[in-house]
Amino acid sequence: MRLSEATVAISGLGLMGGSLALALRGKCRTLIGVVRSPELCKRALRTGVVDHATLDLAEAASQADITVLATPVLHVIESIPCAAASMRPGALLLDLASTKREVVAAMNAMPTGVLAVGGHPMCGKETTGLESAEPGLFRGATFVLTPTERTSNEAMSLSLELVESIGAHPLILDAVQHDRAVAVISHLPYLLSAALVHTEEQERKKAETVQTLAAGGFRDTTRLAAGSVEMMLDIMSTNRDEVERALDMFEASIREARSLLGDPEGLARWMAQARDARKGMFT
Amino acid sequence: MRLSEATVAISGLGLMGGSLALALRGKCRTLIGVVRSPELCKRALRTGVVDHATLDLAEAASQADITVLATPVLHVIESIPCAAASMRPGALLLDLASTKREVVAAMNAMPTGVLAVGGHPMCGKETTGLESAEPGLFRGATFVLTPTERTSNEAMSLSLELVESIGAHPLILDAVQHDRAVAVISHLPYLLSAALVHTEEQERKKAETVQTLAAGGFRDTTRLAAGSVEMMLDIMSTNRDEVERALDMFEASIREARSLLGDPEGLARWMAQARDARKGMFT
Repeated sequence: MRLSEATVAISGLGLMGGSLALALRGKCRTLIGVVRSPELCKRALRTGVVDHATLDLAEAASQADITVLATPVLHVIESIPCAAASMRPGALLLDLASTKREVVAAMNAMPTGVLAVGGHPMCGKETTGLESAEPGLFRGATFVLTPTERTSNEAMSLSLELVESIGAHPLILDAVQHDRAVAVISHLPYLLSAALVHTEEQERKKAETVQTLAAGGFRDTTRLAAGSVEMMLDIMSTNRDEVERALDMFEASIREARSLLGDPEGLARWMAQARDARKGMFT
Repeated sequence: MRLSEATVAISGLGLMGGSLALALRGKCRTLIGVVRSPELCKRALRTGVVDHATLDLAEAASQADITVLATPVLHVIESIPCAAASMRPGALLLDLASTKREVVAAMNAMPTGVLAVGGHPMCGKETTGLESAEPGLFRGATFVLTPTERTSNEAMSLSLELVESIGAHPLILDAVQHDRAVAVISHLPYLLSAALVHTEEQERKKAETVQTLAAGGFRDTTRLAAGSVEMMLDIMSTNRDEVERALDMFEASIREARSLLGDPEGLARWMAQARDARKGMFT
């Protein structure tokens, strides 16, 4: 099976699923969107983001060569048995969810005969919904592919072809390593961002001026706090142990900074190390 | 005295001082730059950012109607007596430093007869130096003006004229309120950003992949960590009590988030509150 011959069903036409549909236009045979309301069906068809739209995941999965689950993690996990029960033998299930251990466990519990690969594109915006979708969202982004017990060589080849067709860079990574890394690189930054907004809000109750002074630095540091609550909530519930581990590491680092506040030489070294590491990551 | 007739001396032609010089071009009579090396003198003259350049603050201050100190806070505090001793009666001293209590104390200790207003433009970038300077840096930014015991009505009027001439919005704010607010809105975010980079670096020693997965969210949340160590070090030393207070507030907020990790409803409320507050600040 090549991507160009495939019927692709995408469950969830929000930022991720909508962008995937736009990015796959002309690269597969047919696109079916699965959405949660008749209004979203009409909107998806009117904007031409998919060829067909339905409320019924089982129906879409029964017609698809590739079914992509592009909803928040807990909904993905709930949807896997339903999709798997309807998929044709040899059809591929892929997801775009932000944590991978529980998704892979659910994929491993699928009947043999259907194929599955876990996926997580490392891109996002603080805006949500189909109106934020853009065909270039995945371009240049790392796209994690996580093998499962239902991942044949053919399943991985087709997944790699899909990832490359939308301009992303595939990275094959197991679920445990993935979830540990994203706790540090993504879920921890989100919590810090939200806690910083709470801190500012608390201070604002005492002195209004604090908000007037907020400039670009505060805006960037708190950008993640504006993201989807539904998505982040599912992430925290499926990656709690790793998020707590990341919080432990971060709190140790903040304690170190605090202990250096009276030691300019030590603080300068700590600051310079962070500056150099940051500059080495993003040039 | 109107700005258009004034000779303006600017000590420090980095991001802030250099941008101020560029923004004041054509708006005052003459611009004198005070820099710390003959090479910087030559460069400032070659690029035409100032009309004259010198290594000698006293000499520049003796010729200026307005002297602006645009170096890191501790250097500003050290420079105030020197500038004040050379300034003509009625001349104005202004600074652009990031904390205000110690600056205002040093200004209050100046001889009577010279005028002084504390200043802090709420803008910045993670890049430093004259090569990063840009004439539009202050446009639309809040520019705090802090009264001192050497602030006459005329001193404040001239400062307001200068601030408005570069497109910034003046905000008159006392030093205590200023330092408390910027601890929350600027110094705390910097420390979180640097601590997050340290956390990532520590994790990277165990698993290289963490860096491959870092995307836009991590980049934005850690942008401040790439800023000037020299500037941040002076800030921490002159605002330590307020920074510790802000850290206390933030740590309480993180503890709250952590305690809610097992309570999806409570966590959803906490997340939604942060999202709404953030969206209300920056639309």
